[in-house]
Amino acid sequence: MSLDWLHHPLPAPSAAAATAAAARQAQLTKPAGALGRLEALALRLAALQGVACPRLERVRIVVFAGDHGVVAEGVSAYPQVVTAEMLRNFARGGAAIAVLARLWGATLEVVNVGTVAPLEALPGVLDRRVGAGTGNLVREPAMSATQLDAALAAGFEAAERAADAAAQLFIGGDMGIGNTTAATALGCALLGCGAAALAGPGTGLDAEGVRRKARLVDAALARAGVSDPLDALRELGGFELAALAGACLRSAQRGIPVLVDGFIASAAALAARRINPALGDWLLLAHRSAEPGHARLLAALADGGEAPLLDLGLRLGEGSGAAVALPLLQAACALHADMATFDEAGVSRA
Amino acid sequence: MSLDWLHHPLPAPSAAAATAAAARQAQLTKPAGALGRLEALALRLAALQGVACPRLERVRIVVFAGDHGVVAEGVSAYPQVVTAEMLRNFARGGAAIAVLARLWGATLEVVNVGTVAPLEALPGVLDRRVGAGTGNLVREPAMSATQLDAALAAGFEAAERAADAAAQLFIGGDMGIGNTTAATALGCALLGCGAAALAGPGTGLDAEGVRRKARLVDAALARAGVSDPLDALRELGGFELAALAGACLRSAQRGIPVLVDGFIASAAALAARRINPALGDWLLLAHRSAEPGHARLLAALADGGEAPLLDLGLRLGEGSGAAVALPLLQAACALHADMATFDEAGVSRA
Repeated sequence: MSLDWLHHPLPAPSAAAATAAAARQAQLTKPAGALGRLEALALRLAALQGVACPRLERVRIVVFAGDHGVVAEGVSAYPQVVTAEMLRNFARGGAAIAVLARLWGATLEVVNVGTVAPLEALPGVLDRRVGAGTGNLVREPAMSATQLDAALAAGFEAAERAADAAAQLFIGGDMGIGNTTAATALGCALLGCGAAALAGPGTGLDAEGVRRKARLVDAALARAGVSDPLDALRELGGFELAALAGACLRSAQRGIPVLVDGFIASAAALAARRINPALGDWLLLAHRSAEPGHARLLAALADGGEAPLLDLGLRLGEGSGAAVALPLLQAACALHADMATFDEAGVSRA
Repeated sequence: MSLDWLHHPLPAPSAAAATAAAARQAQLTKPAGALGRLEALALRLAALQGVACPRLERVRIVVFAGDHGVVAEGVSAYPQVVTAEMLRNFARGGAAIAVLARLWGATLEVVNVGTVAPLEALPGVLDRRVGAGTGNLVREPAMSATQLDAALAAGFEAAERAADAAAQLFIGGDMGIGNTTAATALGCALLGCGAAALAGPGTGLDAEGVRRKARLVDAALARAGVSDPLDALRELGGFELAALAGACLRSAQRGIPVLVDGFIASAAALAARRINPALGDWLLLAHRSAEPGHARLLAALADGGEAPLLDLGLRLGEGSGAAVALPLLQAACALHADMATFDEAGVSRA
């Protein structure tokens, strides 16, 4: 698969739908503006879905999982085998994202883009292994150009499946022991900053562990010397990071808004946005995670726009923060569609 | 009904249940602390419900509606008839709180504690009119001691119905044109501050309108000269404010945690907490509203504890902000109860 598709144009949000939605919103039985950010959310979703009354009845969550060669440097509190073990936990419905998908009626799909070892067949888990984990980004490129192409294609295909199922919102999640290190390196390359600006505890490093991780990321940045987003994904990223970037872009190309999760998903979304800047219109920011560097990634993603909806100290990944924020979007849509107008209800205006 | 019940003791949160919940939480397949504030929420709900796995399958929302004599001073952008019109909108399911109750499967009850005129019978609306609107608190007491007793009793009875229906969470909402003025006066009396600290635009006053409202509230505070919470409710409150205070207290006495909505509900909850300080254990703070004075009421309610869950610029009342936050509590409970443990899932630990 050529990489040309990454640069294909994205549909423009519908100004006509936004206008129609605003006209409806002005008629609803509440003081103007009284639903705060939920009102702006309803209008944005209207513009992106191209309808006056946006709906979130079909939400697609896709978790991409992959392993990371950089764990050889001792950057995670967890053993690498946890990536595969968690894939089994997703398949059995015991992981956080599986619980949340059931709770809100979203469809969960899991894609293995590169565990170290092949896995047995698991229900609900697609095998799209691009390699046996990435290379150790401190010492070598994380992946080859062929592997990058395949990982991006795994994201493309996931978005295609979502679009073919008429999904109205896409949430991308991540699983991969060591992937906050890769996301930190990727984010630093995109932002042109040193590791100290983004490195954090991930799943539970102490202060000395964070300093060590930052030194390793700085070494990786010096080794790779990249700022182009595709080069950065290949040199410093991960299979799940590349797949997430591809999924964001393809979802937007197919007209599906993307609700961005935490640190990993935001680094991938930023890479995707640098590849195709119009993507910014299609990204909704779910939450600010506990990972300290997330605020800086969010600021770059928002580009002066909206702050994330939640700030609850979440730092689990898997798409879980986006899934926690999902009911706020569902509430915005339900209020917009189902509240009575002043005329319908016979309520006087100000 | 004597007012003695207000001072009856509240059950203590269960330390044993909190310990059991913490032990379960430590086994779940996620890094410790990775679900941030959702973890603390699950433990608090466990302690309050007295079980290791708290549930929110039966949530009771009660909206108390009443009119305010102070509207004669021109403190609202809306005509007083809107209170009654919105009661009809609640009954028909077109109001924001009705939409949200349906969306999350909560039970909605509406109690008319004092519209200016009697209303026709409306489905789902209980007639507990305490009077034909309150007195104009700038010039006279908002209500008599007998009316205060009856309004508090309307809240007591709503909490009794919730408890008899085995509700696991109580949300109190308000409707009443002019009630941000009453809530401002009540809050100022409780906090011992002038109106400038709490007065805001309510449903849509401009800057001059807010200054005028503040002058009226200061005049009311000078007239009444009260700080005792029951005196403050009687002199400066409203029927729905008193009913909300009574409902909070009785819910807690019956072992039902209360999710506190916005400016009006917070002023009522603060009055209730001043009447019976142990209530603080039973209050969960849903959101910080756009009404500028809400932050100060929340700080007094939290007393150094948790910040509210959401900050989305909501300012509608009706309990709507609490209903928007409700799915976050539902997510916390579902994750706590339904995630697999490390042993169940065969996942390695850090």
